[in-house]
Amino acid sequence: DHYIVCGYGRIGKHICNLIARELPFVVIENDPAVIEEIEAEGFLFIEGDATNEEVLIKAGIERARGLVTVLRSDADNVYITLTARSLNPRIFIMARADDEKVVKRLRQAGANKVFSPYLIGARRMALALLRPAVTDFLELTTPEINLELQLEEVRLCPKSSLVGKDLISSRIREISGAIILAVKKLSGDMVFNPPPQYVLESGDVLIALGERKGLARLEELASGKK
Amino acid sequence: DHYIVCGYGRIGKHICNLIARELPFVVIENDPAVIEEIEAEGFLFIEGDATNEEVLIKAGIERARGLVTVLRSDADNVYITLTARSLNPRIFIMARADDEKVVKRLRQAGANKVFSPYLIGARRMALALLRPAVTDFLELTTPEINLELQLEEVRLCPKSSLVGKDLISSRIREISGAIILAVKKLSGDMVFNPPPQYVLESGDVLIALGERKGLARLEELASGKK
Ligand SMILES: [Ca+2]
Ligand SMILES: [Ca+2]
Repeated sequence: DHYIVCGYGRIGKHICNLIARELPFVVIENDPAVIEEIEAEGFLFIEGDATNEEVLIKAGIERARGLVTVLRSDADNVYITLTARSLNPRIFIMARADDEKVVKRLRQAGANKVFSPYLIGARRMALALLRPAVTDFLELTTPEINLELQLEEVRLCPKSSLVGKDLISSRIREISGAIILAVKKLSGDMVFNPPPQYVLESGDVLIALGERKGLARLEELASGKK
Repeated sequence: DHYIVCGYGRIGKHICNLIARELPFVVIENDPAVIEEIEAEGFLFIEGDATNEEVLIKAGIERARGLVTVLRSDADNVYITLTARSLNPRIFIMARADDEKVVKRLRQAGANKVFSPYLIGARRMALALLRPAVTDFLELTTPEINLELQLEEVRLCPKSSLVGKDLISSRIREISGAIILAVKKLSGDMVFNPPPQYVLESGDVLIALGERKGLARLEELASGKK
């Protein structure tokens, strides 16, 4: 149930630091100088080439929950995606694509999610020119930046007392102080700005904006443990 | 009142395409092969080296509203920032930093906003592992991706009929269908999840989530033109 991160370059390093508190992972890296950095951080690692099938097997690809491939070479990321997909049909694969034309290739190879850091960076910079206040808002609400106010997701368990209630009678806002911006249904559909009459269903994922404490209360309610 | 974009590389190209409909700009680029690409897109450009003071002056730095420096070399971006700031004390300067240590240097040199594409990309990828539904939500609401549902910012003009009303009596939700996630005050403070009793002030920037048409109505109301 762990994650495998292929490549501890600029991107890989940041990802490892951001997920370290919440997810178990092992890094695959073949540069000895970089291995020293990983050791210094205390992260689990395997020294080797991630394009090598045996190295992926050693990293536990067959029982892993996810694989993140963020090498500098698009070709390597495609190759690793293909290999990982053939070794584990159910694994979640996230890949980096520097060239936009590679996005399609990565999807074909079996990647579930593809990100282009240059494009994401450029979008954020364009947004700062076009919508400066929205940019400030996003910077203040992204989980890894602000610990007090967060955009959080909360899944409703079948046992939760919220299931079957509409938003008004759920009293979510009164209890948690959070606002529900959207609900992601089990079907994958997203209901934006759900009306007060919206009836909460088991499996709904609530996209909530609120303060840490309030969101923790909402998590409790949604888990059905309390 | 135009913008100057220094460097038409991976990042610069995306930025130009994203802002082209809304903002006037001129690109500075010195690679003849790249110049051809810019010409093909029909963007204004100046052939030359943006670290050269004369080239910045030719691009109208003294009367420009903003400068975006996104060259591959951090040192060049710092140098351009310093030069631009000395030529125009009021200009808004946005700069790219690949190395995190350069962020401080760019601020010292006079940059108003600094972005690290690698860090932004890594954050988005980590978020996709830690909060997949929040990631979907952000992808669906970022202005340049989805045209129907948007996160928008709307500034209240002094003449607007909304000024002086509280959120309930403003009837913003009924009229526009949008929800107000936050209000950025003239002071720069951000009020998250403003309560129904919140009194709207002239100069407030409303961070609103809604559909295109509804947001256009809200813009009208906020402008005081109707
Ligand atoms: Ca974290
Ligand atoms: Ca656009």
